[in-house]
Amino acid sequence: MANPTACLLIIGNEVLSGRTRDANLQFLATRLGELGIPLREVRVIPDVEATIVATVNEVRAKYDHVFTTGGIGPTHDDITSECVAKAFGVPWVVHEETRALMAEDYARRDPPVEMNAARMRMATLPLGAVPIRCAMTSAPGFTMGNVHVMAGVPRIMQSMFEALAPSLTGGVPVVSRAVHAIGVFEGNIAEALEAIQKRHPDLDIGSYPFYRPTPGSTGFPGGGVALVSKGVSLAEVEEATAEITAMLAAMGATPIQGEPG
Amino acid sequence: MANPTACLLIIGNEVLSGRTRDANLQFLATRLGELGIPLREVRVIPDVEATIVATVNEVRAKYDHVFTTGGIGPTHDDITSECVAKAFGVPWVVHEETRALMAEDYARRDPPVEMNAARMRMATLPLGAVPIRCAMTSAPGFTMGNVHVMAGVPRIMQSMFEALAPSLTGGVPVVSRAVHAIGVFEGNIAEALEAIQKRHPDLDIGSYPFYRPTPGSTGFPGGGVALVSKGVSLAEVEEATAEITAMLAAMGATPIQGEPG
Repeated sequence: MANPTACLLIIGNEVLSGRTRDANLQFLATRLGELGIPLREVRVIPDVEATIVATVNEVRAKYDHVFTTGGIGPTHDDITSECVAKAFGVPWVVHEETRALMAEDYARRDPPVEMNAARMRMATLPLGAVPIRCAMTSAPGFTMGNVHVMAGVPRIMQSMFEALAPSLTGGVPVVSRAVHAIGVFEGNIAEALEAIQKRHPDLDIGSYPFYRPTPGSTGFPGGGVALVSKGVSLAEVEEATAEITAMLAAMGATPIQGEPG
Repeated sequence: MANPTACLLIIGNEVLSGRTRDANLQFLATRLGELGIPLREVRVIPDVEATIVATVNEVRAKYDHVFTTGGIGPTHDDITSECVAKAFGVPWVVHEETRALMAEDYARRDPPVEMNAARMRMATLPLGAVPIRCAMTSAPGFTMGNVHVMAGVPRIMQSMFEALAPSLTGGVPVVSRAVHAIGVFEGNIAEALEAIQKRHPDLDIGSYPFYRPTPGSTGFPGGGVALVSKGVSLAEVEEATAEITAMLAAMGATPIQGEPG
């Protein structure tokens, strides 16, 4: 059976304007791969209601899981939660258990934090949503259908994801092996590499040049290429890796297994 | 007149798997903002022909400019160029001037580099495409219609973008001003901030909490909030910034103009 698929929506003007560098994509891509729920698409979209509603509805029909980051705080530009309610066509209502937990948490603080209208928005969820509670904050993320709504702040997002992960039905973990070769140009190995890819159609074999410029030199004397085999069968990944290693050795290069130091 | 809009397609399995951390989004978001061609959407998609063709056709109809990064090297997983030809319904043919320039460059190298079949793919462009030549490499990016195809390696992408930029018809640059306040919770300023946003509907006012955890402490005593006003009118951005500063001062906080040290 094929692995379940995932899509990530990064919601926030600050990423589109370049002010904030997204730090969530790589974490979620890696963790979802480990769970066998490979990430198939990512979209970065602005804090615009019509865009969020339309995009959520498009991708939740297309992928098994949708993860969103950003836009669930207390300020006027935090509209993800309301938009998910609109996308599902359900009311956006105070979640009583969440309100009580947040109020308790705020009362315990020194000085106490006021449960004002802005913070009540964080206790308001699409009707039928299941809160994602984590150790970092009493304001929760939530799951609505196959859409998992999380914070944008990386350490809170990660905490929410790890709280959510045990409830996700994963697939076969994706495994990968890399071989690096210094001083090898992609153009010299492309043909042989394609032949290896063709022998292993179930794998995803990628070629990624890297550069370590040496001061004063021209060209890329410190650079080379990383050749990565990826798939759900470790045996086949290792077979392709051995073929890549032999291919590089035959052309006089020195293959380095794994990530280079 | 409204500013032209842009969409970025990041093409590559390595970003979706978490192996590679994208380093192009923030650069392009910032540079496009400076040119008055704000980035409205980003998609990360895999090296899959049908997906690339469909996505290119969807977004080129929707935005004034589409920028792509990744997938224009010589290996089997580099399929962006062929896919753009398919999306436009034009043949994918050797671009004679590019072939000659690449052959010259390769002949000059020591040792000379072979212009083999894999490298010929980098001289093959959609019919009618205009090459984007840069100082970093003789293998070009290209512009086809409103789609600008660039390399995925950040330093090459940046070089291609700067070669392309003078030919882009920009709009009014987007300007922004940030005010930071340490020890201020978003939940305490949300209402006042929303009132400022409502007074300046043409601006985009965002609230971004930041955290600087102090060892051994609970809560976020070193954290605070960044309040960013953004728009095409510097006068209005400065007006909103002054209102935000006054709002913070009135609640006893110490507003810091610009990015904190």
